[in-house]
Amino acid sequence: MTAEWIDVSIPLRAGMVHWPGDPEVSIERVLDMERGGPCNVSSISIGSHTGTHMDPPFHYVRDGASLDAMPLDATVGPARVIEIRDPVSVRREELANHELASGERVLFKTRNSSRCWETDDFLEDFVYISLEGARYLADRGVRAVGIDYLSVGGFHADGEAIHRALLEAGIWIVEGLNLARVQPGIYELVCLPIKIQNSDGAPARAMLRPVT
Amino acid sequence: MTAEWIDVSIPLRAGMVHWPGDPEVSIERVLDMERGGPCNVSSISIGSHTGTHMDPPFHYVRDGASLDAMPLDATVGPARVIEIRDPVSVRREELANHELASGERVLFKTRNSSRCWETDDFLEDFVYISLEGARYLADRGVRAVGIDYLSVGGFHADGEAIHRALLEAGIWIVEGLNLARVQPGIYELVCLPIKIQNSDGAPARAMLRPVT
Repeated sequence: MTAEWIDVSIPLRAGMVHWPGDPEVSIERVLDMERGGPCNVSSISIGSHTGTHMDPPFHYVRDGASLDAMPLDATVGPARVIEIRDPVSVRREELANHELASGERVLFKTRNSSRCWETDDFLEDFVYISLEGARYLADRGVRAVGIDYLSVGGFHADGEAIHRALLEAGIWIVEGLNLARVQPGIYELVCLPIKIQNSDGAPARAMLRPVT
Repeated sequence: MTAEWIDVSIPLRAGMVHWPGDPEVSIERVLDMERGGPCNVSSISIGSHTGTHMDPPFHYVRDGASLDAMPLDATVGPARVIEIRDPVSVRREELANHELASGERVLFKTRNSSRCWETDDFLEDFVYISLEGARYLADRGVRAVGIDYLSVGGFHADGEAIHRALLEAGIWIVEGLNLARVQPGIYELVCLPIKIQNSDGAPARAMLRPVT
């Protein structure tokens, strides 16, 4: 008996929270059976970094790989969910307890998961990955990292440097996860961004299944 | 040694082919490092049935399940790629050769894959699933079907009836696949649509891996 998939994606809807300055989320039914349409069809307008999404090097590195060039197994395979107790950031000291190995996929469950998705307001004080933490992840050679709010970088702290420390090391970034229903441990991860040509980022669907 | 994933998704880009009357595809860099931006970010405007995408019952059934309610394993697991030789439609007679079983996920590789994605023009004469073929799939109790152009239904033939025959039987539909690089046979399928609240359809990323 295989365990069930746990959806760790944020639902997209009009008016939902987004990174300040990024495009608003607008989703509208353009054909509507309730209004006599032959079927239901919607128009969708979003930013490339909306909800659960991924960042490739090209998000912050001028000649970096775009997301459509990502090897599909970067975010498909075993992954570790690590609970972060620090209420401010993912720090090197806390990471050092977890013996990260080269090639690992690591998702950080912080207090964001139970706190940040309950409101449509953007919360500036979300838990992010500290610059030293990002450099440590790069040194360890992890393959992909995930965080449970809209950015790996802090709103008031080193957003660009943190992204660059990860992306220049070839680490693929998943942002906007909701890990509230997930216990720390080893899982099978499937996270697939939609394929946009030459993309700086794209919405993704992500799910986890306990390894039994 | 596990086989590699084969991406069977169509890349999204501005001006690409779309179903006649559906929203245009517009993708624009709103922050651009080439123009002095701090990073690269895009706005994305698409229809819910753009490129590689999925249809839930709610696309054609007023009270039908929306796509965000799909069980994740509907399109994640073993799947069969069947080559269709008929240049017009997937007919009951051709399907009857393949001994379809209840619960199967079936993807049809037609001449569309090698022919339809090479142009940004919409091709009206794509291979679709005939109404009798759709009813046969419903009778066999397949769980998910995929086709390699923008609709299971014909442009000039029974579009609504074909969708309804499949969707009212609880069959989840994947449209807009490119199976040109895939040989007929048994694969592991992962097809994940982005999660849009109460959605009538959504873009998806889909990949196959040969079962070894």
